[in-house]
Amino acid sequence: MSEDKIHLPKTSESEDLKKIRHTTSHVMAMAVQKLFPKAQVTIGPWIENGFYYDFDSPEPFTDKDLKAIKKEMIKIINKKLPVIREEVSREEAEQRIKALGEPYKLEILADIKTEPITLYHLGDQWWDLCAGPHVDNTSELDPKAIELESVAGAYWRGDETKAQLQRIYGTAWQSAEQLDEYKRRKEEAQKRDHRKLGKELGLFIFADPVGPGLPLWTPKGTLLRSILEDYLKQEQTKRGYLPVVTPHIARVDLFKISGHWQKYKEDMFPMMADNEEEKDKEIGFVMKPMNCPFHIQIYKSELRSYRELPMRLAEFGTVYRYEQSGELGGLTRVRGFTVDDSHLFVTPEQLSDEFMNVVDLILSVFKSLQLKNFKARLSFRDPENPGKYIGSDDAWEKAQGAIRNAVEKLGMEHFEGIGEAAFYGPKLDFIFQDALEREWQLGTVQVDYNLPERFDLEYVAEDGTRKRPVMLHRAPFGSLERLIGILIEEYAGDFPTWLAPVQIRLLPVGDDFVPFAKETVAKMQMLGIRAEVDLSGDRLGKLIRNAEKEKIPVMAVVGAKEVESNALSIRTRAAGELGSIPVAEVCDRLQAANADHGNF
Amino acid sequence: MSEDKIHLPKTSESEDLKKIRHTTSHVMAMAVQKLFPKAQVTIGPWIENGFYYDFDSPEPFTDKDLKAIKKEMIKIINKKLPVIREEVSREEAEQRIKALGEPYKLEILADIKTEPITLYHLGDQWWDLCAGPHVDNTSELDPKAIELESVAGAYWRGDETKAQLQRIYGTAWQSAEQLDEYKRRKEEAQKRDHRKLGKELGLFIFADPVGPGLPLWTPKGTLLRSILEDYLKQEQTKRGYLPVVTPHIARVDLFKISGHWQKYKEDMFPMMADNEEEKDKEIGFVMKPMNCPFHIQIYKSELRSYRELPMRLAEFGTVYRYEQSGELGGLTRVRGFTVDDSHLFVTPEQLSDEFMNVVDLILSVFKSLQLKNFKARLSFRDPENPGKYIGSDDAWEKAQGAIRNAVEKLGMEHFEGIGEAAFYGPKLDFIFQDALEREWQLGTVQVDYNLPERFDLEYVAEDGTRKRPVMLHRAPFGSLERLIGILIEEYAGDFPTWLAPVQIRLLPVGDDFVPFAKETVAKMQMLGIRAEVDLSGDRLGKLIRNAEKEKIPVMAVVGAKEVESNALSIRTRAAGELGSIPVAEVCDRLQAANADHGNF
Repeated sequence: MSEDKIHLPKTSESEDLKKIRHTTSHVMAMAVQKLFPKAQVTIGPWIENGFYYDFDSPEPFTDKDLKAIKKEMIKIINKKLPVIREEVSREEAEQRIKALGEPYKLEILADIKTEPITLYHLGDQWWDLCAGPHVDNTSELDPKAIELESVAGAYWRGDETKAQLQRIYGTAWQSAEQLDEYKRRKEEAQKRDHRKLGKELGLFIFADPVGPGLPLWTPKGTLLRSILEDYLKQEQTKRGYLPVVTPHIARVDLFKISGHWQKYKEDMFPMMADNEEEKDKEIGFVMKPMNCPFHIQIYKSELRSYRELPMRLAEFGTVYRYEQSGELGGLTRVRGFTVDDSHLFVTPEQLSDEFMNVVDLILSVFKSLQLKNFKARLSFRDPENPGKYIGSDDAWEKAQGAIRNAVEKLGMEHFEGIGEAAFYGPKLDFIFQDALEREWQLGTVQVDYNLPERFDLEYVAEDGTRKRPVMLHRAPFGSLERLIGILIEEYAGDFPTWLAPVQIRLLPVGDDFVPFAKETVAKMQMLGIRAEVDLSGDRLGKLIRNAEKEKIPVMAVVGAKEVESNALSIRTRAAGELGSIPVAEVCDRLQAANADHGNF
Repeated sequence: MSEDKIHLPKTSESEDLKKIRHTTSHVMAMAVQKLFPKAQVTIGPWIENGFYYDFDSPEPFTDKDLKAIKKEMIKIINKKLPVIREEVSREEAEQRIKALGEPYKLEILADIKTEPITLYHLGDQWWDLCAGPHVDNTSELDPKAIELESVAGAYWRGDETKAQLQRIYGTAWQSAEQLDEYKRRKEEAQKRDHRKLGKELGLFIFADPVGPGLPLWTPKGTLLRSILEDYLKQEQTKRGYLPVVTPHIARVDLFKISGHWQKYKEDMFPMMADNEEEKDKEIGFVMKPMNCPFHIQIYKSELRSYRELPMRLAEFGTVYRYEQSGELGGLTRVRGFTVDDSHLFVTPEQLSDEFMNVVDLILSVFKSLQLKNFKARLSFRDPENPGKYIGSDDAWEKAQGAIRNAVEKLGMEHFEGIGEAAFYGPKLDFIFQDALEREWQLGTVQVDYNLPERFDLEYVAEDGTRKRPVMLHRAPFGSLERLIGILIEEYAGDFPTWLAPVQIRLLPVGDDFVPFAKETVAKMQMLGIRAEVDLSGDRLGKLIRNAEKEKIPVMAVVGAKEVESNALSIRTRAAGELGSIPVAEVCDRLQAANADHGNF
């Protein structure tokens, strides 16, 4: 299929695309000012997948306007105007802007701190302040690779107290094929949108009085969560993890010791304080943004021996982070989410092996979830910004070295992400690329010499001396909420059989067959199969349509022939009609799907 | 055994005890003032199990002082002083107090609003302001039934800014037998104290930086929680409950609609607000003290049909309540706890049957937990305090009537608790009396016509009209934390086999037998048995002592004979040595214990 063939380059990867998008945005601005002489231009950068330009215009642009603007743009392109760079002094730039009567440009000019000032001209017909780069001639733009997409309101400088502007979003590519592929993916992304599918499949809701970014999980969504949790718990039990449960709040004190209060406060919900005095003294309670300091308290509650290490404390711990409401979207960015968290307390000698064990677990989780396309990011600290981090250079070097060694030993494809570290230590993050080439961060494993130091953690070594353990923080899913959002989109709602909240629905073609259907479902449930009967009494066509709509992987029609032969007439989402299959065999195949994390 | 025979009456149940305790406290005060002439008396009430008196005394009382006071009390009792009631005018009382030079008594007198003022005299030797009643003569007190227990600091009128007083606690009974039984129970209660046992058994911890009332569950405690949760989930699945998951916080809005903000704010953690403006406008977030408004949002997220009712949404929902730190104690009163919560949305016609179903579930839970001694309390609203509740009189009458009817239909032993209702509706509470005759509230079921009204809940009835559902709130455990605290004390740490975090521990008598022990444990784990091997290499005596200390129900010694015969030499906490039993039979018996919620 074509979607596997065409690669869409990212703007950031392609100098060509940057130039095309930059110039197209200028062409659009020129077209707008031609058609709407009162419109004033402000800024017009390239962005991922396209560009935008913000205009101060008396009337909002309509869809009809967009068509007219596009038409005008084609005219400009066809004029084959050269794109000319000019360097002028600040005074010269100021005079020219004043001549045009564009006050926003004056403000922009004031922000440019270097000289000379660069202008870009489209022939002798239009110019704007711009750092470039651009294509050399508008004829290099392909009108068939350009589309104007939408209009949205935007405030000047993103400030609600300032003028409201009209932002026109557009896209531009190297070829018509790329534009078509981009449109196809956009349409596909809308179809797969987990917010839309989540509602259709009845998995979760949001509710105004509860607040943005706080999903409520309905029975089906809760079932899906449990399947994922149970699966990981089982894997973890096999690997010697120990489950714990910790509170969702703690005194500010705890987060002062850990350093969250100093380095992570912006991302935390405000403190709960009874009065101003408590607030000033910072003696109230706060919601946990991470589970680590709590697991540390459990470690610290007894004097530990080397015999107890590695100690792997695990919790599906729900944490709360105060994301800006503008940044919230469905399940992929929320304010409360459940981390499949674990903290491993290890001796320095155990660090390397345990790191490998964790990577092994993460890879096996991805395999079970049928997520194939991912790479590893070495998320290191930004040496230019030391104030963001706690701990000594030495601790950071050791931790980053440990991650680099492990990745090289494993021979994994990887890249570096400078400045992507947690404030307490570097991370190895697994970045998954979905069917539409979008990237999502999933699992993570982190090496931490700093929190053991801050909390003064110890163990009694074999020689009787007290030593400091190293900590690994890890989460294969990352966040249960985001994972489910990503899975819904990746599978387009068609969950593999082992993950589907309802795995098989029996469709009796008449009331006479309901008792057999109910008995069969009861048998299946005893075997751990998530089965149900459609008791609506509707006609078969509607029963099938409903099951299709709810994307139930296996449908089983039950009529006289099936009852007689103790069989089910099977139809799957993946393979269509499979004909009559004995009940026992259907059960075997569903149980096998559950055991192998696979499909029917 | 004697503990089953002797009933200790409560002060509140026994006029005799009230008199005895009241007079004993006067006798104690007289003795104190005899021995410590500078000591001034303040108040001295009877309490559950005894009495106290608060003194303003220059030096704290020592244990030696208590002995001397007790001796002096016996002298006073033996003087057979008559206890004489006298009524005087306010002026007369004032003059007499001034003559004594006791300023606290003047303050107490000022608080007495009625006249005449009553004084109680011990012969002609001592008197105090007192409403009585008292015994007629000190000779009615039995010195062998009296004990002084402890001294503690207390502030005058409970106000930290006022003088610090010395409070002497004492106990007094009708007979020496009662006092002995009381002492035995007190000692037994100390042995069973879940805070002490919880630590010894390694079930949970508290940590200063996290804060009081916020337990952290260690691996063994977490396992115990899961066993209880899994058991109830299974029972609920059988009964058609649907699991949901909801956030721990919401906007204040949600709790304004529900009425929590108006009627329950004192028990809630302070609001999280970014700044004063948010705080004033009450637009911040708050932690949930209950799960109901969240489950209501899920109900409300779609138009419901009568076909979907009863809809039983269930969640092990962790809630947070701002208990005063002085009231916190172990697991029985905490600030964060997990409610085995469910909200049933039913038609008015279904109410009665669903109520019965819930009671049936609660009783079956108590049976599985081997909790036998409980009674039902009809927790109704207090008509004298209407400001505490939301909703119409009519709704309350209907709800209270429904509970009364159900209890009468079931023929359950019950009593009324006026003022014990929730702010939104009456409750049927199950009060459990433990082995030491202490009472604990466990399960609850509540009938609610008010929240459906406030949230404008509806369903489409069979005739197509929109109708209002009724809500049942229910929790068989009540709180997982409190339940575990109670179970630890009730079982004295000896969990029945099906609940024990570790059910069987294999004790190899030498390294040669470790492989067989490990294999056997692996087999057991495959069968869902919580088994482990002691790998410490210690001598058998110590292995057994450690297992006894950790109260592991079944110990299995493994030596040459056992390996040869594929058997285990079994010793249980309950029955001692059981001799050699084939491995397969041990497994069968442990599996049976798990299936029947019983013992090995």
